[in-house]
Amino acid sequence: MSRSAGTDAPAKPLIVTDRDTLAAVLAKVRSDGQTIGLVPTMGALHDGHLSLVRRAVRECDFTVVTIFVNPTQFGPQEDFARYPRTLEADLQALAQAQADLVYAPTAEQIYRPGFSTFVDPPDVAQPLEGHCRPGHFRGVATIVLKLFHLVPAHVAYFGRKDYQQWRVIQAMAEDLDLPIRVEACPTVREPDGLAMSSRNRYLTPAERQQAVAVSRCLLHAAQLAAQGETRAAMMRQQMRDVLTRSGITRIDYVALVDPLTLTEVEEVHADTVALVAAFVGGTRLIDNRQLKE
Amino acid sequence: MSRSAGTDAPAKPLIVTDRDTLAAVLAKVRSDGQTIGLVPTMGALHDGHLSLVRRAVRECDFTVVTIFVNPTQFGPQEDFARYPRTLEADLQALAQAQADLVYAPTAEQIYRPGFSTFVDPPDVAQPLEGHCRPGHFRGVATIVLKLFHLVPAHVAYFGRKDYQQWRVIQAMAEDLDLPIRVEACPTVREPDGLAMSSRNRYLTPAERQQAVAVSRCLLHAAQLAAQGETRAAMMRQQMRDVLTRSGITRIDYVALVDPLTLTEVEEVHADTVALVAAFVGGTRLIDNRQLKE
Repeated sequence: MSRSAGTDAPAKPLIVTDRDTLAAVLAKVRSDGQTIGLVPTMGALHDGHLSLVRRAVRECDFTVVTIFVNPTQFGPQEDFARYPRTLEADLQALAQAQADLVYAPTAEQIYRPGFSTFVDPPDVAQPLEGHCRPGHFRGVATIVLKLFHLVPAHVAYFGRKDYQQWRVIQAMAEDLDLPIRVEACPTVREPDGLAMSSRNRYLTPAERQQAVAVSRCLLHAAQLAAQGETRAAMMRQQMRDVLTRSGITRIDYVALVDPLTLTEVEEVHADTVALVAAFVGGTRLIDNRQLKE
Repeated sequence: MSRSAGTDAPAKPLIVTDRDTLAAVLAKVRSDGQTIGLVPTMGALHDGHLSLVRRAVRECDFTVVTIFVNPTQFGPQEDFARYPRTLEADLQALAQAQADLVYAPTAEQIYRPGFSTFVDPPDVAQPLEGHCRPGHFRGVATIVLKLFHLVPAHVAYFGRKDYQQWRVIQAMAEDLDLPIRVEACPTVREPDGLAMSSRNRYLTPAERQQAVAVSRCLLHAAQLAAQGETRAAMMRQQMRDVLTRSGITRIDYVALVDPLTLTEVEEVHADTVALVAAFVGGTRLIDNRQLKE
């Protein structure tokens, strides 16, 4: 589907809810020799998601966005039931961003009776989120693999904000010989630095103020590194201090890790990644940045 | 690649050992609109394998045979090291059967450093072989998924002789939304009924005589069912008796199961599947048949 490069009202994306239609449309797109870009989402779209869509639209002939709140990646005590669902607004934003097709299946269609095959994710899924959210990456890897099969894309786009997720999917794609390129796009932030997240809408105004410390602790680590500091243990302590001083005390982790293996380092380097997961009120937020960013 | 339907010497299949060449050749085949059939094997080919290849050649435009002795599906005490490797003879037989391409990768190419993503196979992998060979179907499902990604086939062919393997792969393909049809082909047998298997060549002449009881116990169950017998417990005991009377005493299982779930039945029906796994000397053989076959 070609689109005019003008400023006129964008064509609405095709909205597909069943897999047979999806397969038929995408088979035609591929046989026409077009490249397909895929942006998997759980909806509740914000500018972070839309930056992925815009990049896919720039780089590929045909952009598919999936919207599916995947139950298998939520723990029993987590926020699956109350996760925001904003389909109408999402579709408007995707029309604006010039996505070509939106696939929004039901859970019944994705997990049919008897479903019992899962991906046992790669080693990089073990620490950090893998430790705090048992089963999370098993659910993520499985749904992403299913979407890779349902949407025969050439490139898939993920947000660097979910740094470990990106690394898990990239390692899975390599280990399983998936014929797809996995790209990560920069985190999109609010003016005060807070990383955009669908979960930010859970925050009360007071919590929203507090939440800025989550990105600020990462910035602080980067500043220490820029001043020549290399001792990871000391830097992690200072990151914790930034959080606790602002009233954030329920900290899942503060980490300085190797960018590929995600194992903790003792001495930081330019490519070391700082990560944080902490609760602001009842809302669990995560963020990260490469120290040299 | 078209082939003449005559009796002249068959064109040799293209032999590919690296994934980049494989991807390039198959991308061209697909973009030409040809259908691809895939026959995954561990080599040491016999007439059972070749019946799969001939069916793929009949049904598809382009037939790919893979030859890879997959280490991850063998247990630590099993026969990976001594598993027969007969590449030259395999290639001759595949030329005769008119395969178009043979992909024979090295283990280093399939399992690269850091490889750590596996398929946690579906429920149907739990009983029988899953019970006797822990990790076997995890290895099988993982390598088959990798081959499905490396070879973008329309149809994959497996032998019904490995009945549970076929069901595991079929369930995996459905659960993971793989865009491939999974077909099973009838077991090919020696004149006396022994199912063809690469492992038959381990048998001494005396063991080869004994081995016929493995298929005979299945035939006995089918005959009992044909006479109106429905009591599974009694039939299983008689199957065991057939084995032990011929000197086979190390029996992993004798089973009468539902054809889809592979759970044991109490009353047999026409579609009940009889399965056996037993050691003849040091060689573990498996076989099965549907009672109404």
